[in-house]
Amino acid sequence: MITKEQIVDDYQSIQDEICTALEILDGKAKFEQELWQREGGGGGRTRVIQNGNIVEKGGVNFSAVDGQLPEAIKKSLKIYQDDFFAAGVSIVIHPNHPLVPIIHMNIRYFEMPSTFGGMKEPVRWFGGGIDLTPHYVFEDDAKFFHSSLKATCDKYNSGFYDRFKKWADDYFFIKHRNETRGVGGIFYDRLTATEETSWDDIFEFSKAVGRSFAPIYTELVNRHKSEPFTADQQQWQYQRRSRYAEFNLVYDAGTKFGLETNGRIESILMSLPPTAKWLYNYQPATGSEEEKTLSLLKKDINWA
Amino acid sequence: MITKEQIVDDYQSIQDEICTALEILDGKAKFEQELWQREGGGGGRTRVIQNGNIVEKGGVNFSAVDGQLPEAIKKSLKIYQDDFFAAGVSIVIHPNHPLVPIIHMNIRYFEMPSTFGGMKEPVRWFGGGIDLTPHYVFEDDAKFFHSSLKATCDKYNSGFYDRFKKWADDYFFIKHRNETRGVGGIFYDRLTATEETSWDDIFEFSKAVGRSFAPIYTELVNRHKSEPFTADQQQWQYQRRSRYAEFNLVYDAGTKFGLETNGRIESILMSLPPTAKWLYNYQPATGSEEEKTLSLLKKDINWA
Repeated sequence: MITKEQIVDDYQSIQDEICTALEILDGKAKFEQELWQREGGGGGRTRVIQNGNIVEKGGVNFSAVDGQLPEAIKKSLKIYQDDFFAAGVSIVIHPNHPLVPIIHMNIRYFEMPSTFGGMKEPVRWFGGGIDLTPHYVFEDDAKFFHSSLKATCDKYNSGFYDRFKKWADDYFFIKHRNETRGVGGIFYDRLTATEETSWDDIFEFSKAVGRSFAPIYTELVNRHKSEPFTADQQQWQYQRRSRYAEFNLVYDAGTKFGLETNGRIESILMSLPPTAKWLYNYQPATGSEEEKTLSLLKKDINWA
Repeated sequence: MITKEQIVDDYQSIQDEICTALEILDGKAKFEQELWQREGGGGGRTRVIQNGNIVEKGGVNFSAVDGQLPEAIKKSLKIYQDDFFAAGVSIVIHPNHPLVPIIHMNIRYFEMPSTFGGMKEPVRWFGGGIDLTPHYVFEDDAKFFHSSLKATCDKYNSGFYDRFKKWADDYFFIKHRNETRGVGGIFYDRLTATEETSWDDIFEFSKAVGRSFAPIYTELVNRHKSEPFTADQQQWQYQRRSRYAEFNLVYDAGTKFGLETNGRIESILMSLPPTAKWLYNYQPATGSEEEKTLSLLKKDINWA
């Protein structure tokens, strides 16, 4: 039986490991930490890194909150219990270099006491994912990214990658633009034990997803950080970032949850880009790298 | 009896008048027009002005659409008819100068054939409003703005200003920031004829709101356009613009309606700022103009 304490300990370790790796990767900027407490129960460690060699703005946040669920959330999650416990690690990195991709990772655990039929087992699940949003899509990077995720998934369940890859395609989709946020990745929610995969396996899988972040992003950064780039490419980066803001503010479930539960607003919206541009009706030139990128922001591309 | 044709004619004239006034005010940039048609019925005239002396990005859009209401919208508006007609003029101006305010204006008309009890009268209403979002709040400007709106309202109904001013305070509110979008203005929706105010009066009021835009904004621009400003003030402008983006993407009913009904996306999101910045946890200095501005982004300030 996995305990809340184990989850908190391991998730905090993962936060620590990732922050250390990102500071080494960046070589200049250091994380600043803010500890916060939630009225109603729990709190978190918000860690932000800014204006580095690589990272223009990034956050690696841990939180573990408990208490009573607000009515609005009970309704939206279609659950009827009052008490809950939720813990997670959540990351968004906006690099300053337009050829280095934006990346997002989240692992989370949710638990409520069961009130059905006198059962003693809590209702609980794991969720999470990791997805990549290149300003310019490089096919080799997308292949490397997806192959790495597939390898992580395959260790725990041979069906995970296909299921969670499709889930990411559907989730990280900007409906009003008819484009995916980036090249996808994996996304899963309400993952529970089955005959095939025990609770321990799922917990180990959750940690493996968390621990895949640093080596994957290090590789992707190192592939591109020394490449020269133009002012036009930087402008395109700012435009792509505005799509990122659109996704997070219009569709992202975690952001909505945070806004509706009066979470710590600067932690929730840490994911938003440092600078974003909305140009009216911008159309990339025919045959350009920008046009190619748009053509690859589609669901159901088999990258692995 | 007001006809659809009258509304279309008069709203198009208002769009024309405003575009002319804004081109004169700007002195450099000209509107570019795109005509579009909606699958399912109707269309519009999107007019965008960019990179001017005053206007960094602005739109003055007219649309008149009809057809069958999508299920999602019927549900959200709690209406059960199938056919609808909607016409409106919608404006957002993002100036390049941080001491010149952002402004928004909208007038709209909505009509459905009644299907209740064999009545021949259509179900219909007017909506609209005008609100001001200064990057720096100047009390004299807010007073001028609200007094002008009050004068317009008072010509048609002595109760309008107070009702619609409060409505704007409540509507243009960024809940997750606990701040108003700007200094408010007026907002009204589902306005119908009463014993006090006839349909003709309401239609005239709608046009008067539309025609108040150009003289009000001209005055506000001319008050500030020649003032010098610093790079720090420009940064603050970009930060305030990110709040504008948050409001429009998270709360604005017109934007939501557009996204859900597959409206023309570049027309709907024309309101988003050309450049916006999200700085992590920025706190203005004690006693600064920025801090003063934040202190005035509150509901229930009696500006008129």
